[in-house]
Amino acid sequence: MKPPSSAPLDHSITAQSIPGDAVPRGFRFGAGTAGIKASGRPDLALVIAAEGTTAAAMFTGNRVVAAPVIVGGRHLLRSEGRVRAIVVNSGNANCATGTAGLEICQQICAAAGALIGCQTNEVFPSSTGIIGIPLPGEKLIAALPAAMKELGDTSAHFRRFAEAILTTDTRAKMAFATAEIAGKQVGLLGACKGAGMIHPQLVPHATMLVYLFTDAVAEAVELSPLLGAVADRTFNRISIDGDTSTNDTVLLLASGASGVQIRHNNESFRSALEGVCKSLAMQILHDGEGVTHVVELSIEGAPDDSAALRVAKAVAHSALVKTAWAGADPNWGRLLAAVGSCGIEVDPALISVWFGDQAICAEGTRAPGLDEERAHEYLKQREFTVRIVVGRGPGSCRFWTTDLTVEYVHINADYST
Amino acid sequence: MKPPSSAPLDHSITAQSIPGDAVPRGFRFGAGTAGIKASGRPDLALVIAAEGTTAAAMFTGNRVVAAPVIVGGRHLLRSEGRVRAIVVNSGNANCATGTAGLEICQQICAAAGALIGCQTNEVFPSSTGIIGIPLPGEKLIAALPAAMKELGDTSAHFRRFAEAILTTDTRAKMAFATAEIAGKQVGLLGACKGAGMIHPQLVPHATMLVYLFTDAVAEAVELSPLLGAVADRTFNRISIDGDTSTNDTVLLLASGASGVQIRHNNESFRSALEGVCKSLAMQILHDGEGVTHVVELSIEGAPDDSAALRVAKAVAHSALVKTAWAGADPNWGRLLAAVGSCGIEVDPALISVWFGDQAICAEGTRAPGLDEERAHEYLKQREFTVRIVVGRGPGSCRFWTTDLTVEYVHINADYST
Repeated sequence: MKPPSSAPLDHSITAQSIPGDAVPRGFRFGAGTAGIKASGRPDLALVIAAEGTTAAAMFTGNRVVAAPVIVGGRHLLRSEGRVRAIVVNSGNANCATGTAGLEICQQICAAAGALIGCQTNEVFPSSTGIIGIPLPGEKLIAALPAAMKELGDTSAHFRRFAEAILTTDTRAKMAFATAEIAGKQVGLLGACKGAGMIHPQLVPHATMLVYLFTDAVAEAVELSPLLGAVADRTFNRISIDGDTSTNDTVLLLASGASGVQIRHNNESFRSALEGVCKSLAMQILHDGEGVTHVVELSIEGAPDDSAALRVAKAVAHSALVKTAWAGADPNWGRLLAAVGSCGIEVDPALISVWFGDQAICAEGTRAPGLDEERAHEYLKQREFTVRIVVGRGPGSCRFWTTDLTVEYVHINADYST
Repeated sequence: MKPPSSAPLDHSITAQSIPGDAVPRGFRFGAGTAGIKASGRPDLALVIAAEGTTAAAMFTGNRVVAAPVIVGGRHLLRSEGRVRAIVVNSGNANCATGTAGLEICQQICAAAGALIGCQTNEVFPSSTGIIGIPLPGEKLIAALPAAMKELGDTSAHFRRFAEAILTTDTRAKMAFATAEIAGKQVGLLGACKGAGMIHPQLVPHATMLVYLFTDAVAEAVELSPLLGAVADRTFNRISIDGDTSTNDTVLLLASGASGVQIRHNNESFRSALEGVCKSLAMQILHDGEGVTHVVELSIEGAPDDSAALRVAKAVAHSALVKTAWAGADPNWGRLLAAVGSCGIEVDPALISVWFGDQAICAEGTRAPGLDEERAHEYLKQREFTVRIVVGRGPGSCRFWTTDLTVEYVHINADYST
């Protein structure tokens, strides 16, 4: 896929193995097994951060939110953006569990705080998995002490953390970058999970889970706008199935262990953060449920940028477009139908479509010289680009999405039964 | 499925075979084979209506519209709501075909008009099939004379018409009703096609194709509001895949052959029309691509009716909800997630969900005594009802949709290749 000019994607930061020196100082990582997942796989993930670690978070824009989203937001507010620990469980979303779910979440944070020696408010909780089933808090609390003993600051420890947060994902998703600030290096390392119910609509104070760690120094109030701006260009620009989760969370922690202030080169840090977030977002798409194609949508010529985003989402959420992609089918009529029904004023006679550098539709009709076989070959690639020019103004956007396959339906027709 | 109180569905009008006396007087029906469909099946459908026949139509709200939608609308305007013939081709949508597509459509209407002895403006054209491929108008024009010779007014002739308009449908869809007006009976008979790209958003002056025939007497200006009100409660309340077509058309013709004026009992006629349209809409869902479940959504307690419709559409368009239905999976958390992200203000603690008469979610959490096995058995039925009470006001709606199956993906990943 052509790297977007707006957000350069350095593939070197997309790492299946994280080098030992990529782990920012000030954090210890680990995992445990509480017995929530029927598979018996690790389902408890832990991070302990150095004293003084600052934090910024974004949560799902869904009105139905999980208990840990409520508790996590409240804790950040009460601790004034200080975080000493992250406790994640996978296999159960602790959502639609009422006040009992909130109490269990609080109890887990209190138990972790007591073991670490910090305030309950400094423990940040997350949950991911099935909705509507009571979370067995006692199992998680019982598994905490053993998990604490296994914590460490190596890349192997980080990988264990990254694996324990997974649900229907097939692989751990990690990325790292460094930023040069005032002649010194600070590290940035991230892990995430998410393969279905992926259409994050993060709002400041956002079941995709993303954890980002840096050893840079920053106040919580400095981290928030950086995270907000970057999430809007990365996680808020991807969709697998158009379903927005109840548990989406992005958390950025700054331990300060490097002694290097972010404010001395905000732009360098922002760029590193965007690189890591873009890499994690693309890893989510590539590991999406049943995904066989990852598609970059480039929308141009919309009345404005928000209209361009409407066009992108209409295309990314069209079952007919996504199934055509699954078959590498150059059926561009479905793209036009999606654009035409997205709710913005368009003139079909002005719409043009390219697959990569091949003109497919020119001003509303079949492009002269269109070679369906060549288009079909192009769409067989795992990654490809669809460019839609609306012809109505200066608005543009980039958005990344996937195909809709038989395997997606298999995975989701048999999830809880 | 429980008949909705707002739109009584008389299953007796859902007919695979239409009795001979159900065909309203004043129309002759037939079909032909122009060689557009690779299968060699009939792909030309014809109706000739008595002189003086009036018409009302609705077309797709998609901004990208097919040539016959533009031409059909223009003809109705110029003929002041008079229609003498309908010429439908299946296998090619004549959409995204530019000015050449418009000219071909005009030529077909002119050829039909010359054969019948009516104005070109009195011929109403429709097309359905693949988008973006030039329509071979000369083949259609060449097939017209032979098809004209085969026209007739029996139910067998009507069935041939209903079969020739099909594309990915597996069966003809027909319905009839009678209305009693001033002590006399008038007939109403309809046929439609549509199995994918089904989420009609019809606007007055609307690739679902629906043709409705009555021998009642009415001015075109009387027919329009009746058709608009009924379409809003039937075709505009169904969705298979959430994709709105470029060719959706609903056409109502009144031949006047009964001599009975609709205006003497508007309500009786409206009720018959709603019965026929509801039956045809449900037949479309049952024949939807890969469909194994047809779901009635009953939304209550929304701030207003339009908010209720947003809730219904968010649920009907959620890939995760629809795949859960495919597996008869009582995963109600996905329903809550869909409601929470539909854009209206909801309080999760007020949301309750029923499957049929089983309480599934009570005020935001698992309903006491929920029996998953019983819920699973209920969802195994081909038709079932999902009731969602939002708890925020008096707004309500009913909406009908389907599951999303492996077969749907198979059908649409291999459509044009």
